[in-house]
Amino acid sequence: MKIGVGQINTRVGDFEFNARKILETCNYFKIGGADFAVFPESAISGYPIKDLARYKAFVDKAQDALHKLAPMLPIPAIIGCPSRSDGPSGCRNSAYWIENGEVAASTDKHLLPNYGALNDARNFDPGEDFCAVRYRGYNIGLTICEDIWTLADDNTAKRYERFASPIEYFSSAEFSGENKLDILINISASVFSSSNDNPRHKGGLLCRVSEKIGVPVLWCNLIGGNDEVIFAGGSAYVDASKKGEEKCACLKKFEEDLKIIDTDTVSSYEGGAFDFRGDEDILSALVLSLRDFVDKCGIKRVLIGLSGGIDSALVAALAVLALGKERVIGVAMPSKISSRHSVDDARSLAENLGIEFHIVPISDVVEAFERTLSPIFAGRPRDVTEENIQSRARGAILMAISNKFGALVLTTGNKSECAVGYCTLYGDTCGGFAPICDLYKTEVYRISKLINAKAGRDIIPQNTIDKAPSAELRPNQKDEDSLPPYDIFDAILKQHIDAFKSADEISGHGGLAEEVARKVARAEYKRTQYPIGPKISAVAYATDRKMPVAAKLEIL
Amino acid sequence: MKIGVGQINTRVGDFEFNARKILETCNYFKIGGADFAVFPESAISGYPIKDLARYKAFVDKAQDALHKLAPMLPIPAIIGCPSRSDGPSGCRNSAYWIENGEVAASTDKHLLPNYGALNDARNFDPGEDFCAVRYRGYNIGLTICEDIWTLADDNTAKRYERFASPIEYFSSAEFSGENKLDILINISASVFSSSNDNPRHKGGLLCRVSEKIGVPVLWCNLIGGNDEVIFAGGSAYVDASKKGEEKCACLKKFEEDLKIIDTDTVSSYEGGAFDFRGDEDILSALVLSLRDFVDKCGIKRVLIGLSGGIDSALVAALAVLALGKERVIGVAMPSKISSRHSVDDARSLAENLGIEFHIVPISDVVEAFERTLSPIFAGRPRDVTEENIQSRARGAILMAISNKFGALVLTTGNKSECAVGYCTLYGDTCGGFAPICDLYKTEVYRISKLINAKAGRDIIPQNTIDKAPSAELRPNQKDEDSLPPYDIFDAILKQHIDAFKSADEISGHGGLAEEVARKVARAEYKRTQYPIGPKISAVAYATDRKMPVAAKLEIL
Repeated sequence: MKIGVGQINTRVGDFEFNARKILETCNYFKIGGADFAVFPESAISGYPIKDLARYKAFVDKAQDALHKLAPMLPIPAIIGCPSRSDGPSGCRNSAYWIENGEVAASTDKHLLPNYGALNDARNFDPGEDFCAVRYRGYNIGLTICEDIWTLADDNTAKRYERFASPIEYFSSAEFSGENKLDILINISASVFSSSNDNPRHKGGLLCRVSEKIGVPVLWCNLIGGNDEVIFAGGSAYVDASKKGEEKCACLKKFEEDLKIIDTDTVSSYEGGAFDFRGDEDILSALVLSLRDFVDKCGIKRVLIGLSGGIDSALVAALAVLALGKERVIGVAMPSKISSRHSVDDARSLAENLGIEFHIVPISDVVEAFERTLSPIFAGRPRDVTEENIQSRARGAILMAISNKFGALVLTTGNKSECAVGYCTLYGDTCGGFAPICDLYKTEVYRISKLINAKAGRDIIPQNTIDKAPSAELRPNQKDEDSLPPYDIFDAILKQHIDAFKSADEISGHGGLAEEVARKVARAEYKRTQYPIGPKISAVAYATDRKMPVAAKLEIL
Repeated sequence: MKIGVGQINTRVGDFEFNARKILETCNYFKIGGADFAVFPESAISGYPIKDLARYKAFVDKAQDALHKLAPMLPIPAIIGCPSRSDGPSGCRNSAYWIENGEVAASTDKHLLPNYGALNDARNFDPGEDFCAVRYRGYNIGLTICEDIWTLADDNTAKRYERFASPIEYFSSAEFSGENKLDILINISASVFSSSNDNPRHKGGLLCRVSEKIGVPVLWCNLIGGNDEVIFAGGSAYVDASKKGEEKCACLKKFEEDLKIIDTDTVSSYEGGAFDFRGDEDILSALVLSLRDFVDKCGIKRVLIGLSGGIDSALVAALAVLALGKERVIGVAMPSKISSRHSVDDARSLAENLGIEFHIVPISDVVEAFERTLSPIFAGRPRDVTEENIQSRARGAILMAISNKFGALVLTTGNKSECAVGYCTLYGDTCGGFAPICDLYKTEVYRISKLINAKAGRDIIPQNTIDKAPSAELRPNQKDEDSLPPYDIFDAILKQHIDAFKSADEISGHGGLAEEVARKVARAEYKRTQYPIGPKISAVAYATDRKMPVAAKLEIL
């Protein structure tokens, strides 16, 4: 069996773009001799469609696109597309077997994720029927994403009367003898996270599924960034049906890949090559998500306020990796308080990256604000207000340049500062995308050093890496005046945020954990207005930590 | 049977506050001769707790509070509290029957809503056991919220092997003969919306449930605002077990109410008095949500930029109704473009309301921005950039006053302008709470007129009501230069947003519906950074319309 695996990067709502890409891929696979083609989950509509599912017209247009595409396909193909349902959601997440120019069979997603970034359970009604297709003598089982992530032991599968899960169905007596499956195919959109198990591992999910049902599994995973979520590709064919003779072939990670897998010739177990590669993978994920957000929004250029510090330096470096230097503009906005090195470091960075660079001093604006406010502030001491004015002057300048030049402002905040609200709303939080909002400060340093190491030269200036982090909003200010040293701070945050530990469950830091947890609680409102940014970790704020605001959160 | 119905306003995460309120209420009911007390859903923890459920420590502390409270209670009580589970969510939404100082029985919520503002299905594992309690010869069935909103016909109930829903269980043979229930009690937190059916109606939900199970139903509903959601109270006892002899007694709407219902003496059908009262109810809901957000955040004062226009006038009037005039500050921020009436109207409003009022002109700041940006903008024509600078200058001034005085900025945007992004991010969208973000502009006028009518005098100046709406960001600008007349505009939006109609399904407006839908699509990113505000309609942006950003949305 020669299967064309079309690991493509789809666009949400762009039926025409997606259909064209599917058609071109099928033509390519036809030339390569593939028996049929497989595409990721919801390939016609893109994924996730969220509440677009509530628009019947959206679902109908997706179906139109599918049915218009079908007669053009030169080979059979498995294509995902939302469909109408008469259940409470009005929509299903479906997969179609297209053969001879028409829909020949279909199935719906049964197990609907409702955790982290995904809420299929909100938008789709669960499937009721299973589907296996006969083609050229092969018996091909068809499933969608989550359907294979539960073998037989999960509570969510209780509603199946006869089977504890779709996998149990496909391993039941119905598929014995001459009805035995030849392969189980899964079209998927699996959310990347640095903490995810690699399903391609020996002993990983795909192996367990293959072993359970006694036939090979082909997992066609989505590639691309869509708002907060990243799909990493790395599609795989895994055969663990014979103990000791496991086979595996994989597609590339973090890029589109079109590959014809000849199931008769897969011999080695390639899976290990696609293990999680730590910071390398995180870097690839960051670049992919930024590129896709900007391009899928149709934006030409991005704009970054360069402070001379590490966060904005990393964001600028990522932007150049994602978009090329011509599409990136850096702006330094020194105040009277800014140290000389901050502009120098910003300029060095811009030179290293080869990007357009401007210097726009903010003192005139800050002084005008202070004059304007002096009657109403009369007699009150200077405090954090004046620090925020500087940050908001910068935010407004960046937004003005953004408006005038049509460039998207990138927000440079990291996960550590965002945790405790060490940022100014409408100041440094301005922007349409926040590329590193799910990286702790210690990770910001690691990824920055990785970029320099891979380039073999200083992209991010050494001084930026070496100097003590500072917001430079008052003279001689250092982050560590307000925050614990970042290695300790991040260690506490990882337990409190990523592992949902309360302060009193975090040992070894005395009263510091409590103080950090209290600050995290008080900054909740800032996070509700934070720009979108990619989920990298197990617990990103926007997708995995949906918290009340008007609440007593200091108890955590 | 004398049931003390404790329709209380709980606080999320404030176990101590909630437990004290429950205890005081029980003491009051004891004096009144109640047999037992009932409280709304999750009374110990507040509701909704969202991802707080992921903190085991949170659940444990809630349980501690419940078990510390139990021995102090002078009468039995039904109290909701999250509990630990060994399912995938790790938590259940539970109800406890407390008797003789300890937990004597309990049940868990079975049907977990996953729509609109609620996502119990994300945070809780479903219940497995049902619960009826014997007390003083009565047989009392116990359910939680959603459990009674499905009679027997809903897909979500498929997983029950023997019963199509909890209601079907309670109307089964298990409860016949001497096991017959005397009452079914439901502790609830039902989200207010101006489109909700009134469950207290003759023929409404509570009637249908009572009829189906053949016994009276007591629905104890939460009162109060929590972030975006409002719980309207209006708890009710409904007996529809005998055709033609329906009885109903209700508690107040939009306020705390403690009432002992003697089931032997309820005779009339009060339900009708608690029908949805249109704008009166919307006004009550707006005031309740604003008061609760501010008070539950522990904020002393609020701050509003007064433009002289209708939106900021309504927000200021609501703030005075919610918090009293001493807690409200108005700031007019005229520019060179502002018409004279804008400051005059703002001043009249402040005088009518009796609030503190300041005038802070923005020209000095705007000129400084323009000077600062002139080198980089050289040779480019003026455009929307310069308009946004004015709005952002105002935003930054308000935030500075907010920082200095510790007052919360209220955002004055309405649902119509937010639909198409007719607002400046980090300008007029600044703020911690947006009280009217779910009111269309035509509704803003209606509620404003209602406030004046109820006061019997002009609170909101007549000139503010009469003049043509304008953002006043360029000379002689009117909203209708950029937008359709608001009656037509809102009619289109109601179909597109609230009824999920695509442009080509909206008839009677020619190409206008398409133009509006396209603008709605392009403004999606602004809404992702919009402050929290109350859900009033069927489809509020934040809770009921979760849309992708980097997507082709112009197809709707």
